[in-house]
Amino acid sequence: MVQSKSVIFSSVPNGFPIPGKDLVVKTNEVDISKAPDGGVVLKVLLASVDPYMRGLLRDPEIKSDNPAFPLGEPITGAGIAKVLDSSHPILKKGDIVSGLMSHSEYIVYATEVIEALNIRALGNPYSLPLERFTGALGMPGLAAYGSIYEFGEMHKNEKETIFISAASGAVGSLVGQLAKREGLRVVGSAGSDAKVKYLVENLGFDAAFNYKTEPPKMALPKYIPEGLDIYYDNVGGETLEAAIDNAKPQARFVECGMISQYNRKKDEEPYPIRNIEQVVSKRLKLQGFLTGDVAGKYFVEFNENVAKWLQDGSIHYTEDVTIGIDNEAEGLVRMLKGENFGKAVIKYADA
Amino acid sequence: MVQSKSVIFSSVPNGFPIPGKDLVVKTNEVDISKAPDGGVVLKVLLASVDPYMRGLLRDPEIKSDNPAFPLGEPITGAGIAKVLDSSHPILKKGDIVSGLMSHSEYIVYATEVIEALNIRALGNPYSLPLERFTGALGMPGLAAYGSIYEFGEMHKNEKETIFISAASGAVGSLVGQLAKREGLRVVGSAGSDAKVKYLVENLGFDAAFNYKTEPPKMALPKYIPEGLDIYYDNVGGETLEAAIDNAKPQARFVECGMISQYNRKKDEEPYPIRNIEQVVSKRLKLQGFLTGDVAGKYFVEFNENVAKWLQDGSIHYTEDVTIGIDNEAEGLVRMLKGENFGKAVIKYADA
Repeated sequence: MVQSKSVIFSSVPNGFPIPGKDLVVKTNEVDISKAPDGGVVLKVLLASVDPYMRGLLRDPEIKSDNPAFPLGEPITGAGIAKVLDSSHPILKKGDIVSGLMSHSEYIVYATEVIEALNIRALGNPYSLPLERFTGALGMPGLAAYGSIYEFGEMHKNEKETIFISAASGAVGSLVGQLAKREGLRVVGSAGSDAKVKYLVENLGFDAAFNYKTEPPKMALPKYIPEGLDIYYDNVGGETLEAAIDNAKPQARFVECGMISQYNRKKDEEPYPIRNIEQVVSKRLKLQGFLTGDVAGKYFVEFNENVAKWLQDGSIHYTEDVTIGIDNEAEGLVRMLKGENFGKAVIKYADA
Repeated sequence: MVQSKSVIFSSVPNGFPIPGKDLVVKTNEVDISKAPDGGVVLKVLLASVDPYMRGLLRDPEIKSDNPAFPLGEPITGAGIAKVLDSSHPILKKGDIVSGLMSHSEYIVYATEVIEALNIRALGNPYSLPLERFTGALGMPGLAAYGSIYEFGEMHKNEKETIFISAASGAVGSLVGQLAKREGLRVVGSAGSDAKVKYLVENLGFDAAFNYKTEPPKMALPKYIPEGLDIYYDNVGGETLEAAIDNAKPQARFVECGMISQYNRKKDEEPYPIRNIEQVVSKRLKLQGFLTGDVAGKYFVEFNENVAKWLQDGSIHYTEDVTIGIDNEAEGLVRMLKGENFGKAVIKYADA
């Protein structure tokens, strides 16, 4: 028996989640001595915190495509774990695995759960740091890669410009570098001058701006006077409205997320989009997606290419690591507030 | 020389155009005795009035993909005309032609203009009434046919429901019948009880409602409890917002028009869309288009199929005919207000 902490969804947040109230850490005892028949014992090393998780911290009465986290239970999310013991036909003791998993220090899973959560041994031919498999080589990377190739229609016209919001984030930073590889003009927005500098100096963006000091409605005509062909949206709200105003005819809007809208208080109105008429007049396409919609088609080439490009240094990636499961809720909230710098990840333990 | 009346764009409307002020009829003399070298003399029989024309009655300073009508000049739109004289290599005296044309009783065009306006002899193997070539077999029909097949992704899922606004209109009435042929459940909204009756009894819609007496937010959950898979949008505004609320995951929004927004007064705010976040959470696709975007790919099959289906009575179509160029502006405004019943067309003369 070991003491194992878990992050528990304890009450529905009103606005930003409050650590210690909406998300609490609970300890219980787990028998890690032996895997159940066909199952595994896992020690979680890294837990990924991602914007979509805010949508699951909701009243379970509110129906949606993605089921809400059950109240009173540990939250589930992407993670990297080490197999402490296994009687699973494929996973071996000592393997490093990735997949969805309970955000708990130790986990015992039966075969069916391993399959349902898509937990599999990590392929890591270049021995890249494990953190990378929560971001560039994890779900955010796959979302970025699959969606920009599937929905972005890069090169639809001659010389194209892509605008990316939350451009230094887990998804945006990869999208920008992929678009740059394709020869597009790449412009990003982010929430601090340090992030803006990183985009231009480290990631090779052609231009970037701090949306907190330069409102998108002012910044887009300035940095993209030619108009945008692709908007990769991670934030929604006024940035989306400004992108519509500054879109060229037949521009594509890849709608990955709208984080500016996820932490509204109960009495707060959503940001109203007043220029949707331009979807008709400019013949725009807005396309929402889940990573699963593009995963099957792009998984193999994504893994091969992104691992290779990270290894040869042609693409860069940064994680924002919070240490310890006790600090996960704070790490999650920092990410939801945009205070992270790079992919937000919680480190529970070393391998 | 003959006296020839034209419909002139005389001032930019504020709200709905005012006949006699924003659009006036002007008479001038035209020499119709002989076609210019390579050109034609046309007698216009039918002039089409369509929602997109409202967007061209704007201040020419406001840039858009589609150039504004020049102030002080005759408006241009789709029409059907008879060739009174020709020295054009293809068009013959006596031919009935369709294409874009000046909304004037008599026109003299040079070769280049004939080509630029895509004026060509009408193929009418079933001797259908000429009015039909302004609607079901004209630009609205091609828009309907091309867009629903190109962007609707009918049959993406098992059993699908399409919702169509302005469903008894020039585009909507054809979309509904095409979707019905494909086996979809078809639900429409329209602006009068008579139109609702027509949709269900004459066009075979599964259900329909009058949006003036049943607001879309109430009506959609009632008539489409299963949720909609495709929304064919002709109106925008609150109907679009309600359609987003009642969309199933991965629903497709074919954005043909937003007529509810075209006649706002200068100080009127556009209807704000407050639920655009669902584009992400439901993985919706919104796709705007111009008829030209789908014309090339679908023109041949559209013409063959729709003509055949009109001839064999398997699809129905109605025009709302206003008599006389003097009444064109009124006919246009009635259409913009949704007071037409079927495709709005102005009859200048018999063939």
